[in-house]
Amino acid sequence: MSRVLITGAAGFLGQRLVRALVDRMEQPISKLIMWDHQPGPVVINTETEVVSLQGDLLDEDLRRQAFADELDVVIHLAAVVSSEAEADFDLGMRINVDGTRGLLEASRTQGNSPKFMMTSSIAVFGGDLPPQVPDNWQPAPQSSYGAEKAICERLVSEYSRKGFVDGRVLRLPTIAVRPGKPNRAASSFVSSVIREPLNGESAVCPVAAETPLWLMSPARAVDAMVHALGIPAASLGSDRVISLPGISVRTDDWIAALGRLAGAEAVARVEWHFDADIASIVQSWPGDFEADRAKALGFEADTGEDEIIAVYMAEQEISKGR
Amino acid sequence: MSRVLITGAAGFLGQRLVRALVDRMEQPISKLIMWDHQPGPVVINTETEVVSLQGDLLDEDLRRQAFADELDVVIHLAAVVSSEAEADFDLGMRINVDGTRGLLEASRTQGNSPKFMMTSSIAVFGGDLPPQVPDNWQPAPQSSYGAEKAICERLVSEYSRKGFVDGRVLRLPTIAVRPGKPNRAASSFVSSVIREPLNGESAVCPVAAETPLWLMSPARAVDAMVHALGIPAASLGSDRVISLPGISVRTDDWIAALGRLAGAEAVARVEWHFDADIASIVQSWPGDFEADRAKALGFEADTGEDEIIAVYMAEQEISKGR
Repeated sequence: MSRVLITGAAGFLGQRLVRALVDRMEQPISKLIMWDHQPGPVVINTETEVVSLQGDLLDEDLRRQAFADELDVVIHLAAVVSSEAEADFDLGMRINVDGTRGLLEASRTQGNSPKFMMTSSIAVFGGDLPPQVPDNWQPAPQSSYGAEKAICERLVSEYSRKGFVDGRVLRLPTIAVRPGKPNRAASSFVSSVIREPLNGESAVCPVAAETPLWLMSPARAVDAMVHALGIPAASLGSDRVISLPGISVRTDDWIAALGRLAGAEAVARVEWHFDADIASIVQSWPGDFEADRAKALGFEADTGEDEIIAVYMAEQEISKGR
Repeated sequence: MSRVLITGAAGFLGQRLVRALVDRMEQPISKLIMWDHQPGPVVINTETEVVSLQGDLLDEDLRRQAFADELDVVIHLAAVVSSEAEADFDLGMRINVDGTRGLLEASRTQGNSPKFMMTSSIAVFGGDLPPQVPDNWQPAPQSSYGAEKAICERLVSEYSRKGFVDGRVLRLPTIAVRPGKPNRAASSFVSSVIREPLNGESAVCPVAAETPLWLMSPARAVDAMVHALGIPAASLGSDRVISLPGISVRTDDWIAALGRLAGAEAVARVEWHFDADIASIVQSWPGDFEADRAKALGFEADTGEDEIIAVYMAEQEISKGR
């Protein structure tokens, strides 16, 4: 039996991960604490005590409640997304850096070195990049979000080295296709250009056709997070930051896959309007990764862009009850 | 005329840098603020108003005094050294991370994007390293000091990208030979094994003979800092972290150079007592760097270990009045 805290539990990946953990964790979860600024998902499981905490990541009272009982696993997904962190520097530093440090300190204070998993991003990379980024390449973020994630990577690694937590940081590719509405992430268009046309709506593609994207489906991302929790600390050694494998696809090829699965009519709903601000952020991200270490640790990529879109279409049909 | 703040001004490099700045800055310094936990050096220069601030880097009252007039240049040398940061994690985080962030915030608040130069270290590197570390290699610190410096590298880069400061971070090789007494840096022995034998005293070498060292003399380090302040921001681009060139020498060859300059008697005063704690930190540092970018930017290494020791001997004889 184990006690698990998830921040960002009400987010898209958070909700899917909660379901996966309740269903799939080897050790049944005795207590699940979901902390988000929105209400968390409903969990129906008689074995699990569920606590929903709603509010700011730096709220000390909430933090005390979250760590009231000794936790075995802390999963930290909550973050201010890229466009928002770029627009409000102080907010990004406060939530993305200070918020993470607060969780690490609370975990350290427990004294039991809990597992501490957080998501990072390919946004930690930038500048002159090789066509395929090797695992040992330096972070050089070109956005506040990327800089904040790069700092957190070092914090989790250092807290792990000191034995304060048993950390694992996953650098996620761009996650697509996300259901729902666009958000303020610079990568939001990657989902929009598939999702909106499938709903009969128009979408804007703000980057150049040849811009390479590095993608992972939500299902694979959740698989990766569950897998990461099961890797023994000894297999990770001192390097707790893992660039996950993804698929590399040009933006126009990504939209072409939509055409193969949903027809030319769907593709015609994508409008190309270049947005220099978004394009400059997205172009600073790498479009392809070696990810040898992740593959050796058993992480898996999607098989291709068609699979990602087909799975999304299947999931949506199921949820629409067709 | 310019206003300059130096933290760590009373330290060994700080004192030398203060002298160099007063003598060599293209723009004469109108106001020089020296901030350290010890009393600062005496500066005799009728053109320069000198302010000495003594106390903690997080003292808000001192910070207000330091930034009372708009500064043009902030030079941040103050730090908790490696063995001390390893022994007291909270102290290291507080001074090395929060202290730097406080200076960056105060610089940002000025609104004039002052030059912000700080020293980092080869201790940001670790893990499996190639024999010669390329400029784009990832930081993977194996010490709290290295982790804290790696975080500060990202902070200065991000504050520069946002236009809050005009940053430049210099990754210093191990600086040798330092005069005076051993300190709590894990690299302290590198100076001790030369300095103490030259004074007729014994010294302990705590690492294996074949351990490679990456060295720079104090004079070259001060040259590099003065040079860094003169590089136009446009030449630096978005990457504000520079691995300085140094010389790579095995520990036994370093001590052999002492023999060439001061005789077998001096070498005989070095006692080899392996210290696993110190050796594990020092062995995690790279012993050789590419440093192509620094060389292209005009930074220079020493010519060899004999020059470093010979210059140290000459400087000491001068200061002893022989």
